[in-house]
Amino acid sequence: MTPEPAAPTTGDPGVLRVALLGYGVVGSQVARALVENADDLAARSGARLELVGVAVRDASRPRDGVGTVVPASLLTEDAEALVDRADLVIEVMGGLEPARSLIRRAIAAGASVVTANKALLAAQGPELFEAADAARVDLAFEAAVAGAIPIVRPVRESLAGDQVRRVLGIVNGTTNYVLDQMTTLGLDLSDALAEAQALGFAEADPTADVEGYDAAAKAAILASLAFHTRVSIDQVAREGITGVTAADVVAAATTGHVVKLLAIAERTAEGVSVRVHPALVPAAHPLAAVHGAFNAVFVEADGAGPLMFYGQGAGGRPTASAVLGDLVSAARDRLSGGKGSYESAYASLPVLPADAAVTRYQVRLVVADRPGVLAQVAGVLADHGVSIDAVRQTTGEESADGTASLLITTHAAREASLAATVAAVDGLGSVHEITSVLRVEGV
Amino acid sequence: MTPEPAAPTTGDPGVLRVALLGYGVVGSQVARALVENADDLAARSGARLELVGVAVRDASRPRDGVGTVVPASLLTEDAEALVDRADLVIEVMGGLEPARSLIRRAIAAGASVVTANKALLAAQGPELFEAADAARVDLAFEAAVAGAIPIVRPVRESLAGDQVRRVLGIVNGTTNYVLDQMTTLGLDLSDALAEAQALGFAEADPTADVEGYDAAAKAAILASLAFHTRVSIDQVAREGITGVTAADVVAAATTGHVVKLLAIAERTAEGVSVRVHPALVPAAHPLAAVHGAFNAVFVEADGAGPLMFYGQGAGGRPTASAVLGDLVSAARDRLSGGKGSYESAYASLPVLPADAAVTRYQVRLVVADRPGVLAQVAGVLADHGVSIDAVRQTTGEESADGTASLLITTHAAREASLAATVAAVDGLGSVHEITSVLRVEGV
Repeated sequence: MTPEPAAPTTGDPGVLRVALLGYGVVGSQVARALVENADDLAARSGARLELVGVAVRDASRPRDGVGTVVPASLLTEDAEALVDRADLVIEVMGGLEPARSLIRRAIAAGASVVTANKALLAAQGPELFEAADAARVDLAFEAAVAGAIPIVRPVRESLAGDQVRRVLGIVNGTTNYVLDQMTTLGLDLSDALAEAQALGFAEADPTADVEGYDAAAKAAILASLAFHTRVSIDQVAREGITGVTAADVVAAATTGHVVKLLAIAERTAEGVSVRVHPALVPAAHPLAAVHGAFNAVFVEADGAGPLMFYGQGAGGRPTASAVLGDLVSAARDRLSGGKGSYESAYASLPVLPADAAVTRYQVRLVVADRPGVLAQVAGVLADHGVSIDAVRQTTGEESADGTASLLITTHAAREASLAATVAAVDGLGSVHEITSVLRVEGV
Repeated sequence: MTPEPAAPTTGDPGVLRVALLGYGVVGSQVARALVENADDLAARSGARLELVGVAVRDASRPRDGVGTVVPASLLTEDAEALVDRADLVIEVMGGLEPARSLIRRAIAAGASVVTANKALLAAQGPELFEAADAARVDLAFEAAVAGAIPIVRPVRESLAGDQVRRVLGIVNGTTNYVLDQMTTLGLDLSDALAEAQALGFAEADPTADVEGYDAAAKAAILASLAFHTRVSIDQVAREGITGVTAADVVAAATTGHVVKLLAIAERTAEGVSVRVHPALVPAAHPLAAVHGAFNAVFVEADGAGPLMFYGQGAGGRPTASAVLGDLVSAARDRLSGGKGSYESAYASLPVLPADAAVTRYQVRLVVADRPGVLAQVAGVLADHGVSIDAVRQTTGEESADGTASLLITTHAAREASLAATVAAVDGLGSVHEITSVLRVEGV
């Protein structure tokens, strides 16, 4: 049964009731700020933001800040009842359910929603945006992409009068930390990952990060915003960093590049290409200087030109900052009459398949060290319409065993052509091994 | 006489009438985008944005795009009459008058206003914000600070739930270009400035840029937003780059710094310090990598931590991008019931005098090359409560004439103490010359 729409306020026009769903790393910081910065938040919102409850799975479990900062009496296991008596609902529990149902319930009851749930938005954003628009309530999600970095609002609002061409994002701090350690300390992937886990920059199960699932959810959200087109996570071509070796990182440096895991959303003549993969970024590109667990999103727009947004992409306090910014906006919008999600999908551009992406590539291969091999390899590339930008041949220590290394950088080529080309090159008798194939971005 | 409030639309709810005041570098690009991107702007705004007129001083003068992109019939010399028949007014004429009167007139008539006029906002922002709030119309000004870079909206909205501690901005592209050329090519100031003028990065009369007036206006706006406190341009301590020498840039490099002209807004226990001056920035700081005419604003907030926003700070198309983003927001707000300026000055923190600023300093001086001189200088600093972080003494070619160079880096000291200290050091018989005193920021 759909609940009756809640009264818009407690009856006191100067108070908005806030429900917090989840009290983890982010939720506990949001609760703390609501209590400790109540006066500032009230002055900026135009109303007092009163925390009326915190929904958790087990209200009896001891939690940091509960009983001291946040009264224990605010904790509840009945999230639905809590949602029903709120004007503003903050969802920081994560996961698809019950987050989705609770957000639907909040919207149906006329409450505005602030969420940090990238997985939910990337999977089921459209139904939630439609519901919010119909109810004229806000559905805000700055915290879902790149933590503290204001990127959702700038892309959606500041660039609303412009045409975005491309978004290149370092949106996963764990993988950026790992790749950065491989680059600066020469570690291999497993050692860098183990170190990241020891320092708390990577989870015990790092799959979502290292396989690019987390970045893919953010890529879908960024592409949707940038191109006014609905993009869901299963339309994002995805490749993680598990195939990146210490040798790749060293080879990248020899050609003036660094290896980064990028979330890419690009508008082409044919449609929108959205993908996540490791890429070689020129050392002089602003993204190359993003170190450690930091995030950055580089945006290219017709009018604005290049823009970059840089900051902390995760962590309790940074993410809470983004949640609270959205909360203040949602409160203001509520007081001025509500507005809706502002989600816009009017352009409805086709989302291209993975093999339609067009990029430059660097291919490293081990070949027989004899005359004519380079000509043979170049011929195969030419036959497939892939044109060569540069070749670097190394016969160093390897020449003792009669082999040489080739490093070929191509001009822009279609992913599909490249895959066929690489297979054909691999079939040559003079080619011993394709050591790596990495895309080059940001040029 | 106050004009009667205009009807909110043409009568057609799907159309909003746009008046453009000014057709210079920015205005011509705004007009072009309004015509060429009309469909996208309509889809994003929720209404067609119809350019109903362009106010210029001399409508008969030939202008790029007029008669081709923009019908010549839209040009008018009667800005007041144009304002009176608009729902949305874009002011890109610059200067204090008639811009101020026209904006007041638009607000009084119930129109929303988008302006790029930093000088006007820094001088008379409060009266305009109050008028907009009273009329519940938008007064948006993203384009007034750092051109295309979304910074006004992120600071005002995204960080509304956070506490900003410090803003360090490279907000003047001309001076950044000049200092960057001095750093990378070893040019002196006059040569670098002449080159910037030849390339169109600096005006024939570069005073507003090189003396820091332009940056000071932006500093006042940023400080007002960041600290919810009204700061006007005459409260900004200002020092331009004319005193920066090639030798300063070289000396900076020896201690791992680059020289940047910074707009600084800082919250201290006593209030708000707002200033513009050349500063030594550590080479590893993200601002140090901002080259050429690019702008960047580095923000430190309690929750979010460090953030940086980077992009083109000037130019027709980039600035027009910011204007159009504001225009789409203003249109949406208008359709959803209007809102106001969202200007917030509730904190009303004291704005501190220039000599209350607290920073680290690097002082270079030429002294007599004999034992005891360093002890003497250090003693004067200690007497004034200024503590030394590092000293570097050079007796190189200069020792031939019996002198040595000292480079002293202090711990944080109050500007007032430093001034008195420098005067006292200068009075020592063993001190031949104070070569430079530069502040160190971003540490």
